[in-house]
Amino acid sequence: MNVIFTRRYHFSASHRLDCAALSPEENRNVYGKCNNPHGHGHNYRLEVSVCGPVDRSTGMVMNMADLDEAVAHSVVERFHLANLNMDTLFAREVPTTENLCRAIYRVLASDLPQGKLDRVRIEETENNFFEYAGEGTRG
Amino acid sequence: MNVIFTRRYHFSASHRLDCAALSPEENRNVYGKCNNPHGHGHNYRLEVSVCGPVDRSTGMVMNMADLDEAVAHSVVERFHLANLNMDTLFAREVPTTENLCRAIYRVLASDLPQGKLDRVRIEETENNFFEYAGEGTRG
Amino acid sequence: MNVIFTRRYHFSASHRLDCAALSPEENRNVYGKCNNPHGHGHNYRLEVSVCGPVDRSTGMVMNMADLDEAVAHSVVERFHLANLNMDTLFAREVPTTENLCRAIYRVLASDLPQGKLDRVRIEETENNFFEYAGEGTRG
Amino acid sequence: MNVIFTRRYHFSASHRLDCAALSPEENRNVYGKCNNPHGHGHNYRLEVSVCGPVDRSTGMVMNMADLDEAVAHSVVERFHLANLNMDTLFAREVPTTENLCRAIYRVLASDLPQGKLDRVRIEETENNFFEYAGEGTRG
Amino acid sequence: MNVIFTRRYHFSASHRLDCAALSPEENRNVYGKCNNPHGHGHNYRLEVSVCGPVDRSTGMVMNMADLDEAVAHSVVERFHLANLNMDTLFAREVPTTENLCRAIYRVLASDLPQGKLDRVRIEETENNFFEYAGEGTRG
Amino acid sequence: MNVIFTRRYHFSASHRLDCAALSPEENRNVYGKCNNPHGHGHNYRLEVSVCGPVDRSTGMVMNMADLDEAVAHSVVERFHLANLNMDTLFAREVPTTENLCRAIYRVLASDLPQGKLDRVRIEETENNFFEYAGEGTRG
Repeated sequence: MNVIFTRRYHFSASHRLDCAALSPEENRNVYGKCNNPHGHGHNYRLEVSVCGPVDRSTGMVMNMADLDEAVAHSVVERFHLANLNMDTLFAREVPTTENLCRAIYRVLASDLPQGKLDRVRIEETENNFFEYAGEGTRG
Repeated sequence: MNVIFTRRYHFSASHRLDCAALSPEENRNVYGKCNNPHGHGHNYRLEVSVCGPVDRSTGMVMNMADLDEAVAHSVVERFHLANLNMDTLFAREVPTTENLCRAIYRVLASDLPQGKLDRVRIEETENNFFEYAGEGTRG
Repeated sequence: MNVIFTRRYHFSASHRLDCAALSPEENRNVYGKCNNPHGHGHNYRLEVSVCGPVDRSTGMVMNMADLDEAVAHSVVERFHLANLNMDTLFAREVPTTENLCRAIYRVLASDLPQGKLDRVRIEETENNFFEYAGEGTRG
Repeated sequence: MNVIFTRRYHFSASHRLDCAALSPEENRNVYGKCNNPHGHGHNYRLEVSVCGPVDRSTGMVMNMADLDEAVAHSVVERFHLANLNMDTLFAREVPTTENLCRAIYRVLASDLPQGKLDRVRIEETENNFFEYAGEGTRG
Repeated sequence: MNVIFTRRYHFSASHRLDCAALSPEENRNVYGKCNNPHGHGHNYRLEVSVCGPVDRSTGMVMNMADLDEAVAHSVVERFHLANLNMDTLFAREVPTTENLCRAIYRVLASDLPQGKLDRVRIEETENNFFEYAGEGTRG
Repeated sequence: MNVIFTRRYHFSASHRLDCAALSPEENRNVYGKCNNPHGHGHNYRLEVSVCGPVDRSTGMVMNMADLDEAVAHSVVERFHLANLNMDTLFAREVPTTENLCRAIYRVLASDLPQGKLDRVRIEETENNFFEYAGEGTRG
């Protein structure tokens, strides 16, 4: 039977919310101070969940060192102390945390062993949380 | 595909657990010190989750300002620094956190855009959590 | 040389802020919604610090079981699930957390071995903290 | 309709990760420093979730005192300040937190009223979380 | 006798660490990825401590509403969702959190009633904390 | 003027509390279940504070990378996933967290630049904290 293993990572990044398809005034209305031209930033807490049967011999769902390597390489090194708007992932999408969540899910789904990734959850601030599980998102 | 956006709110309130259908002795047995006639109180942490597709233009599930307005108006202003037993919602129900959870879910389900509300979760203390998702409650 | 040992305890209580020397209108101005006649409540997090030399044989500043017994007996059993306004400690003082902090300090200073108590700190909510160290309060 | 009630408990224990079926070198490769022969330890945070309809009279899913008694008796007294490798539950399984999660689930599923247990979640460190819900595990 | 009252505030901002007196290479050596030309950001947790005698009538060190107004006006509105490098406070200083701490202390020391401000503490990330108390800084 | 910079580190270790100078029965009385012969463990949160003037050019009290290197080398690599009773530091002292605090202070005081170390604080569990500042310990 399956166990879910979740591991938390941290990165700090800046972003500016501004949609090319909207006028400056509409952008200010939609995003408020988040549309501030000089950007602002957050300490993002990222939780990556993998799910699967527990290996009889090792007692693990997945080796933590392998998960760490994948997330460090594909996510933390890429985004820590970076400006999200400069990343190619956000060339055509606004770097909201909803979109960041989906982008990280796509990257990890292709890096981790097939079927292991359960979901990605990001805490943008102490009070704002986002969660994406691909087609399996609850609700 | 759907993303879940959760936002945390806070309010402090008092309550007394006492069921009209039970005798004083039964009430003391069921509720222990929570049946104390002068009431006691908590700092409640409320998490409201909305779920839906990410808008292509804004990159959002729902505008945070709209969610804040609904929750501030319907929940926080109503319960912060209040005595729950005095609220009409609890005229015929004991204000346990189970019932508070369901009451807030019902209020928000009718205030938020149709189908957006995913679930309501309340942390009553650092160690007691309650969660209600209407018909979709897990389990 | 001295080490400081701090231990955290929890209790939930209700209170109403209302000063007998002020008019109803003044009370509402000073305390806002905290003057609400039905009271409200909090989950208080209490931190008790003791300070002293480390015993060479046990390696301890003070035995945790002794500290727990004193705090359980003098503080937690007294205030948990109680209404602070009913306590004799607040017969002539408003039960603000400043006054609660000083009252708990006085009680513990007489219960703990002479000179051990360093300070009392109370987190009233996630964002409001109060600290009292008798004559040694910093500042 | 169902509400989920989750309560958090704490215990501190030590363990050593070492699989009898693997060679010493394989064990070091799989478990790294966790294979250290003298063991190491954690403060485990355990969350037990029960799920069910809210009783009309008491307003509760389950009486917290009953849940506390079951968890204290079957889990906390057994594991707090213990060495997991010495427990009969781990006579033939490595005491990883995946396996600890499943073992606690099995114990509580038989101790709690039929059908009440929803899931068991353990935080091994601030950044590593494990979750097991029997056949109902998400994903 | 004095009580210390501390209140926590939050703001999210971006900054780039780059010292005009250093060469680009020296800046990269000193600041590492924090010298990234596009900046990065944080959720800052700010704790403001005031200290003084407890008012006999109100039971308070200082009215929380007054403290909130001063901090909202002088700090939170100024820095929330802003780029610190654009602020006149950092025209001639690098916006490290050490300097941010001192800048906020100076602003609040002149805004709050004479002698009330005890110290300013900023949590830049979950693991980095900075504290400044003017001439009274411990150590 | 001085600013205090504190950085938090983590390590997990096991220990057993047993004093050679006491009889088995005295040890059980003093340490309770912590005297369990197979040991138990904790996730320790270590906070290291350095204090000093802010460098005018870099805006820092001390370069975080230098602090990290010293603490990683002298403390984290030594204690993470270790059994404290096996460490030479505890050859003649019981590895209580009071003594661990002092041992880490002594190690860091000699590794960090003269006069920089302000204090060492360890959270042994969510509710037990220890603090040592050499001769400057408050109280």
